[in-house]
Amino acid sequence: MTSNTIASLLSKENKLQDVEVKGWVRTFRANRFIALNDGSTINNIQCVVDFENTDEAVLKRITTGAAVSIKGSLTESQGKGQQVEIQVKSIEILGDSDPETFPIQPKKHSFEFLRENAHLRTRTSTFSAVMRLRSSLSFAIHKYFNENGFYYMHTPIITGSDAEGAGEMFRVSNLDAKNPPLDEDGNVNFKEDFFGKETNLTVSGQLEAETYAMSLGKVYTFGPTFRAENSNTSRHLAEFWMIEPEVAFMDLAGNMDLAEDFMKSVLSYILEHNREDLEFLESRLLDEEKTKPQAERSEMSLIEKIKFVVDNNFKRVSYTEAIDILRNCKPNKKKKFKYIIEEWGADLQSEHERYLVEKHFNCPVILFDYPANIKAFYMRLNEDGKTVRAMDILFPGIGEMVGGSQREERLDVLKAKMKALGIDEEELWWYLDLRKYGTAVHSGFGLGFERLVMFATGMGNIRDVIPFPRTPQNAEF
Amino acid sequence: MTSNTIASLLSKENKLQDVEVKGWVRTFRANRFIALNDGSTINNIQCVVDFENTDEAVLKRITTGAAVSIKGSLTESQGKGQQVEIQVKSIEILGDSDPETFPIQPKKHSFEFLRENAHLRTRTSTFSAVMRLRSSLSFAIHKYFNENGFYYMHTPIITGSDAEGAGEMFRVSNLDAKNPPLDEDGNVNFKEDFFGKETNLTVSGQLEAETYAMSLGKVYTFGPTFRAENSNTSRHLAEFWMIEPEVAFMDLAGNMDLAEDFMKSVLSYILEHNREDLEFLESRLLDEEKTKPQAERSEMSLIEKIKFVVDNNFKRVSYTEAIDILRNCKPNKKKKFKYIIEEWGADLQSEHERYLVEKHFNCPVILFDYPANIKAFYMRLNEDGKTVRAMDILFPGIGEMVGGSQREERLDVLKAKMKALGIDEEELWWYLDLRKYGTAVHSGFGLGFERLVMFATGMGNIRDVIPFPRTPQNAEF
Repeated sequence: MTSNTIASLLSKENKLQDVEVKGWVRTFRANRFIALNDGSTINNIQCVVDFENTDEAVLKRITTGAAVSIKGSLTESQGKGQQVEIQVKSIEILGDSDPETFPIQPKKHSFEFLRENAHLRTRTSTFSAVMRLRSSLSFAIHKYFNENGFYYMHTPIITGSDAEGAGEMFRVSNLDAKNPPLDEDGNVNFKEDFFGKETNLTVSGQLEAETYAMSLGKVYTFGPTFRAENSNTSRHLAEFWMIEPEVAFMDLAGNMDLAEDFMKSVLSYILEHNREDLEFLESRLLDEEKTKPQAERSEMSLIEKIKFVVDNNFKRVSYTEAIDILRNCKPNKKKKFKYIIEEWGADLQSEHERYLVEKHFNCPVILFDYPANIKAFYMRLNEDGKTVRAMDILFPGIGEMVGGSQREERLDVLKAKMKALGIDEEELWWYLDLRKYGTAVHSGFGLGFERLVMFATGMGNIRDVIPFPRTPQNAEF
Repeated sequence: MTSNTIASLLSKENKLQDVEVKGWVRTFRANRFIALNDGSTINNIQCVVDFENTDEAVLKRITTGAAVSIKGSLTESQGKGQQVEIQVKSIEILGDSDPETFPIQPKKHSFEFLRENAHLRTRTSTFSAVMRLRSSLSFAIHKYFNENGFYYMHTPIITGSDAEGAGEMFRVSNLDAKNPPLDEDGNVNFKEDFFGKETNLTVSGQLEAETYAMSLGKVYTFGPTFRAENSNTSRHLAEFWMIEPEVAFMDLAGNMDLAEDFMKSVLSYILEHNREDLEFLESRLLDEEKTKPQAERSEMSLIEKIKFVVDNNFKRVSYTEAIDILRNCKPNKKKKFKYIIEEWGADLQSEHERYLVEKHFNCPVILFDYPANIKAFYMRLNEDGKTVRAMDILFPGIGEMVGGSQREERLDVLKAKMKALGIDEEELWWYLDLRKYGTAVHSGFGLGFERLVMFATGMGNIRDVIPFPRTPQNAEF
């Protein structure tokens, strides 16, 4: 008899059979009822121990966190709260767990405490649900792109280029840290480093993804990206995962269609496949909200929010329209914003985005056609000469989820832009080649994966949606 | 009318219709026949230009590498080599390609040359086929694990631990490279670095994956890993992708079953989904082999090799049996090996593995139960006290494809092993916690993804199966 997963036991039709199951004890109640979990589902299976015929020494070792192997018969449950349970015939303690020292007690722990015990936090219902959802979302992403004719591509993590300018970078080196070799000018001689030049961790795979879009047509990346920024906030990580599709012959309108269809598809997937995890997280969130004043509580539950995104069109609003709305809105006129919107060209701050998304439109919003001078060099200049075909997708409660654009496909315009910004043509010779040889309209976007997991799980801190978060002063585990 | 992919045009049943297609010109023959490719398939579609009614200036711009948009009618082809073709009604040049300077000419280029033009090499049939296969294998991996109840987990790329000892590491830092801050002892003060300590790029996600296996049951990683080793060979990269499943309650025998089933499943997937790409690469390989002496040619074609792995059981051989075979084999007795096998305990070199796999067994081989002192600290010590429950899977022509083991689950044995090897307990406190709280038998393995892509594509150099290879002195693009 091979052992069964708890998920399969709880879903099986044929109930009256002998089973074997292995897992970790969540609780042991009245010397009789084990709540056992093996990670295959949020639900525990109840295992009923015949304590009168079980060795006292064994009973004492059935503690929270212990690993056990149980043989018994699956039967309909007499008690409330479960359909089936296991009548235990034999139990073997595989690994003890000292109840005095095991950090994960059968009580509520703060998320801060659990972050310090990130190696054990998936033994809680909350974090196991979050990480199962993270896994499901990952699969849904690969599935979506695969079904839509995209190729998955692995762009390099170590990069010799720092032209993208998306943020501060981490240096990668194996020169002597204390006494690096110096060149004739007294600077560090990176020619002696592993790659023969200075290298950093990537901030984006976009530029490399463009090379593959311009040959394979439709590609996407899904990999880690890095920012060496000293941002100790609940929305920033130094290491996070990003999804970046890039498509040849697609313009900005197509880019918006793709992003919207993609987001709806992956969120539909978890509604279909992770119902129990979502229901658990929804109730957790409701409990948490009860401690807040009425005005700060969400109007929608977690599942309602996800369904709302799946079922409603994203509102498409040009930057120019958005500025008009913001200039004339109450918080701007009453000077409640920290940054007052006075004229066209202002960079939108999080407070403005939140107003648009959470107060004015109350749905996901795609802002597009931003002023050229607040956006990256590679974005397609519009015919007006002052805006670019950029788009940001803003989600209620999360802010920017997606940033994308149609790319500048005209060699002369791109070169002029790079020159104006002091970006070295020689460093991006290969990027320019794409505009020299068979250039075409193409577009893509980047989605911060952890932001998506936050939205889908209702977790409020980005450190709680990635297994082992990397933040300033913290690279534990 | 939205534009069609060439893959859909070549597979469609309803053939007599007006179509629009965009792609890059592979060749233009007799001022009449465009071979057009858009990356959606290895096959080009033939577009027949009515040159008598087409502007001379436009005809001149139909050059290899140019991007074009074509409208026309899909018809049955009169010529040989294709079922359908497009009778061009209008053609628009989207992006020119100067035939004098475009690096990818319609002729055979060396792989070395194409590596220097890695941003354009997927415009060749060979590299587009390789990268489509790489993408398909990636998807097959996610699909396999998803269908078998595994959760995908993202283990950290930046790590504060160097305990795994799998190889030399790259340092990640944003201290001043030339004048780093020093501590009282005159050493670099990594407390002032971004993470407050010295950090490196990961060599493996295994130890972190174990934490999730011991809570979620079955997990896997699929992410980049790094080695700062100065190996300029056709089988090593400084940055490569690895797949690492880890399963609670699974022993070494289960680990072998999993690895074999997994390999067969992902290879079956490409046989089913990438037939045309495989056929192209198979014929490429046959051409290449014709230049070799008979004795060096493969007995099997590419597709036959893949089928052989899918259809046959992997041979399971203990290290001890392998040593017996090697000690008594001809090349050992005749001292043809560089390293002569004299006694039990010898580390197997590539020449020995190749003999076993390619000469003796002539099939994939799983070697297991290696001497403890040539394997990593975390492997489960057997009852004999001298071997560990390790396994390596060796493939003909590739060598080691998979390395795995059952993990040491006993706290006292693990601690003793770490002490003997000088591994700091404090650094791996969280890893030891897994043995303190609910420990259990568990196992896993690591698969070098690029090795798998090499096997599946028949490519001989690992730099040709990853988009932008990172090797000593090379981090271009």
